[in-house]
Amino acid sequence: MSNTYADPQALAHAVGQAMFAVDTASKDTMGMTLVSCTPGRAVMRMPVQQLHLNGHQICHGGFIFTLADSTFAFACNSYNLNTVASGCSIEFLRPGKAGDVLTATAQEQVRSGRHGIYDIEVRNQRDEVVAMFRGKSAQIQGTVLPD
Amino acid sequence: MSNTYADPQALAHAVGQAMFAVDTASKDTMGMTLVSCTPGRAVMRMPVQQLHLNGHQICHGGFIFTLADSTFAFACNSYNLNTVASGCSIEFLRPGKAGDVLTATAQEQVRSGRHGIYDIEVRNQRDEVVAMFRGKSAQIQGTVLPD
Amino acid sequence: MSNTYADPQALAHAVGQAMFAVDTASKDTMGMTLVSCTPGRAVMRMPVQQLHLNGHQICHGGFIFTLADSTFAFACNSYNLNTVASGCSIEFLRPGKAGDVLTATAQEQVRSGRHGIYDIEVRNQRDEVVAMFRGKSAQIQGTVLPD
Amino acid sequence: MSNTYADPQALAHAVGQAMFAVDTASKDTMGMTLVSCTPGRAVMRMPVQQLHLNGHQICHGGFIFTLADSTFAFACNSYNLNTVASGCSIEFLRPGKAGDVLTATAQEQVRSGRHGIYDIEVRNQRDEVVAMFRGKSAQIQGTVLPD
Repeated sequence: MSNTYADPQALAHAVGQAMFAVDTASKDTMGMTLVSCTPGRAVMRMPVQQLHLNGHQICHGGFIFTLADSTFAFACNSYNLNTVASGCSIEFLRPGKAGDVLTATAQEQVRSGRHGIYDIEVRNQRDEVVAMFRGKSAQIQGTVLPD
Repeated sequence: MSNTYADPQALAHAVGQAMFAVDTASKDTMGMTLVSCTPGRAVMRMPVQQLHLNGHQICHGGFIFTLADSTFAFACNSYNLNTVASGCSIEFLRPGKAGDVLTATAQEQVRSGRHGIYDIEVRNQRDEVVAMFRGKSAQIQGTVLPD
Repeated sequence: MSNTYADPQALAHAVGQAMFAVDTASKDTMGMTLVSCTPGRAVMRMPVQQLHLNGHQICHGGFIFTLADSTFAFACNSYNLNTVASGCSIEFLRPGKAGDVLTATAQEQVRSGRHGIYDIEVRNQRDEVVAMFRGKSAQIQGTVLPD
Repeated sequence: MSNTYADPQALAHAVGQAMFAVDTASKDTMGMTLVSCTPGRAVMRMPVQQLHLNGHQICHGGFIFTLADSTFAFACNSYNLNTVASGCSIEFLRPGKAGDVLTATAQEQVRSGRHGIYDIEVRNQRDEVVAMFRGKSAQIQGTVLPD
């Protein structure tokens, strides 16, 4: 851990803020907010707006995936070690409708060497499960914040 | 098949056009174009723009998924029977960079009763594989175009 | 619930015993034992023997999958409603070696209508995670025990 | 390629034979035969016998997975570079019944650096698709045959 930060919690928070500030896709294009970023865990939120709707007038499944995938990225980079997704699977359980507020919670399940597995649940404002996502992470070179 | 259409090819084309016209997410938000929609198959294209970039300044993996997922939707609805994704997995092989043009090709592998499996490959302008996506479809009630 | 059983716990236990008694593949071929079967949950165990080893002299990944898949089947049939696996994914984290004792724990994550999602962890005797399995279930007609 | 072998085909064949000879799990426990092993591709066969049946009196899904997984292993080791499965997904489409003869065909889709993606189809003697499997491979150190 960088010695500029008091503890892993403070480091994870700083990493999250730094990543989010330059994440055009999540912040500007999708309209997500970063609720929290702690070691091995992150929470993000996205209200379903007109721009998210597909031809069935429901939230495009790709954008539900994108919300989960962003939340996964914040959780797996929370140790300030650059980490990317190598593969993911998602199960869609309920549609997201215009006006719904979707909350994704990413939780590390296993981390062993450079690889990890994270589970992300996406729930709506009624706490119903909208999607379940599982991601595999691979640590690469470098850090998010200067070490 | 609706008797307004000459053959399955013409029907698939008409279904594709109708779905795409109202697909705000794919067309307006993501900037995709629908290259073709034929029975059990579809091709879509998306140039990687600033709006697609995440904090690493590469195309958000969620948007590569979204491109594949849209192409999957056009392929599996091409028979004019309403069909939704029940689950998907994706493997990321190469990043998409600003200026890249990504082309997704969806091909039906199996259709049996109300369920199908579709494979979608996403390639860049150098024909390198960027991602491989596998989707499971479930047919629901109704048709895309009036029967 | 069949009115022959005092409660869901007793029913799940009886279903588990009845299924296991005729499960040649799990019991006789693989050498598993059923540790417990409760509503939405099951635990099974399998010692890694010579018969499980592949050419690398480690437990065949297919048999680790099989252990997880059996445990999944006991968990998702525990309500005495016939249920089958529609799809599964597995991540392998550590090899199973001759003499290891693998324990799989299946836990229901979501059940909605006829579909469910179950997570199964396989751990060795040192409580290290050997594999993580996610299964999707689909309820079909009929019951395991006479209703 | 080892210079003992005339060409990649001969090498793949020799690797396949050597791996199969010591693969107790596939050969002895499951009763598979190795039909062919060529560069990036393999075919294996397994008749469904009493020992494969689960409590529903159909082939245990884990054994269908095992057949696909073995075939995957032969295909991804066919270059004589030690390679293991890192993750897999399977979709089950039809049951395997006692007396069915299942044939699995593994085909490399992508190989890039140390990672690859292989698709395996399992079909019965009526050429109906029983399952579709996708595996990700990771090359590790060493060779199957002495280099």
